[in-house]
Amino acid sequence: MIPILNSHPHSAPSLASLTSLLKTQLNAINACILEKMQSPVTLIPQIAGYLISLGGKRLRPLLTVASAELCGYEGTRHIQLAACVEFIHTATLLHDDVVDESTLRRGMSTANALWSNKASVLVGDFLFSRAFELMVNDGSLDVLQILSQASSTIAEGEVMQLASSHDLELSQETYLKIIGAKTARLFSAATEVGAVVANADASKRKALAWFGHTLGIAFQLMDDVLDYAADQEKLGKAIGDDFREGKVTLPVILAYEKGADSSFWKEAFEGGVRDEGALAHATRLLRESGSLLKTNHIAQDFVNQALESLKIFPKSHLKEALQDLAYFSLHREV
Amino acid sequence: MIPILNSHPHSAPSLASLTSLLKTQLNAINACILEKMQSPVTLIPQIAGYLISLGGKRLRPLLTVASAELCGYEGTRHIQLAACVEFIHTATLLHDDVVDESTLRRGMSTANALWSNKASVLVGDFLFSRAFELMVNDGSLDVLQILSQASSTIAEGEVMQLASSHDLELSQETYLKIIGAKTARLFSAATEVGAVVANADASKRKALAWFGHTLGIAFQLMDDVLDYAADQEKLGKAIGDDFREGKVTLPVILAYEKGADSSFWKEAFEGGVRDEGALAHATRLLRESGSLLKTNHIAQDFVNQALESLKIFPKSHLKEALQDLAYFSLHREV
Repeated sequence: MIPILNSHPHSAPSLASLTSLLKTQLNAINACILEKMQSPVTLIPQIAGYLISLGGKRLRPLLTVASAELCGYEGTRHIQLAACVEFIHTATLLHDDVVDESTLRRGMSTANALWSNKASVLVGDFLFSRAFELMVNDGSLDVLQILSQASSTIAEGEVMQLASSHDLELSQETYLKIIGAKTARLFSAATEVGAVVANADASKRKALAWFGHTLGIAFQLMDDVLDYAADQEKLGKAIGDDFREGKVTLPVILAYEKGADSSFWKEAFEGGVRDEGALAHATRLLRESGSLLKTNHIAQDFVNQALESLKIFPKSHLKEALQDLAYFSLHREV
Repeated sequence: MIPILNSHPHSAPSLASLTSLLKTQLNAINACILEKMQSPVTLIPQIAGYLISLGGKRLRPLLTVASAELCGYEGTRHIQLAACVEFIHTATLLHDDVVDESTLRRGMSTANALWSNKASVLVGDFLFSRAFELMVNDGSLDVLQILSQASSTIAEGEVMQLASSHDLELSQETYLKIIGAKTARLFSAATEVGAVVANADASKRKALAWFGHTLGIAFQLMDDVLDYAADQEKLGKAIGDDFREGKVTLPVILAYEKGADSSFWKEAFEGGVRDEGALAHATRLLRESGSLLKTNHIAQDFVNQALESLKIFPKSHLKEALQDLAYFSLHREV
């Protein structure tokens, strides 16, 4: 559906090499998450557990663990810090679903749909606070600085996106700034924390932070593409949600900049005509104008930067798994 | 309206002695708040600034500064930490108003009413993260531990309250646990942080934490009373909001336990009949059953404990101002 643009050395890029290399650590992360989300207030582990058990890819905590071990770390602190990263991610998901009024995530009902917006807001607050508690227990001010700064940057990015909702004049540059904040910042914090816990030198720390950032941008751009182009059953969330919510994403920006049926886009994003017929027309325009393809190309540029930043690390199975992950970001269907 | 139950040594207990003693520090706190809530994302200082400029009493940050100085602190770190405490408070207010669907706070429209629930959720997240950033800059893991634990306890308390909404079987003990978490925990964290920044010994730290806790409970109980008994114009928020939202507070628990018109309470809280006529009847029942008065008595017990915990500190203007504040919590009309 989306043409394969790069020449990946292996046959089918996936997350599998990373998850199988880090299987023990992933189990430890999951156990830690389960333990630390407990609360005598039963609604909290109910809602948190529901969302966390939906699975997802555990991508961000895996990045923390992989980064630490790529830098030679042999301790166990990275497990708890990886759980913190996942808690922050889960908290933002809970709040995002409230903000976006979403009802479906990974093919299942969202927490706000099953419980309520109120519960989602408060349980998100709990997970966020719990993440900070765990970091404080870890005791590294460096880690705390990275993740507290990341958290306020994420919130800034979310507010920026909300404020620019329906804005067709959004430039590509501003859009990349928004997703750099709301999505890529947690990726880069996840990788940088791994380097910090391993006491890696400044160049490795910087390289891993950049790997996380560029990978995060690529993931978000491919998310934008998949929202128009994915196989609904595989994606597990409603196709076209960005369009229905009036979110101006990069494919739309590129199509609008190109002047492809400007009046249609205005009617859709400014006039609010975003029914299923409009979605079908939008998808057709995005394909025919080459905007989905161009977004894919831009994502590939970021993946190339991600791969480049791994070059300072010697060859290892873990490095190859991270390379695989970078390729996977371009070719994933979910 | 609510009888004056204690024999206060001065004539009119108020917050004035504290705010006038700490006028310079209060100005510094306000300047710090204004500086640290800035963001290139203009909607953030707009919303945060709106809520913060509504004023409120700046009670919690004043408690931090007063506690630190009562323990002999002469530095300036407490100003920034007081701002953190106010940021956490403001973040919870933003989220509370979303959860409670409130439209009025301190006589003005709430942020969620003026902007949107979405913006309130995200700007709350920003303020919360920014508070942690500031604490990390301060660099004390002790402070971080107190405030991160307080934050998750607050969220737990809020979820508990949400889960027990409309529950007339709520016991007095459970209710005190809920408000201990959702309200008093930030008061006690505010005072304890003051002691910590001053390097106070364990007994002073414990005494100030207990002062904050008991004062916080008293404030919340009087809030519960005022919601049925205040002069609407002075209170600045809609009277009867707790009732309309189906929040079971201590006066209702006491009246229901006493068996005063049980079927009415059931119809109101379980059946959902909470119109203006029902509110008037509820208020009458709470008065006539003595439940408002009894809540006031219980609040007074907590104020007595607060005063008791100040006994280890030598006589000073600051100590007197904190005593005044404790009395004020019982007699305030706003």
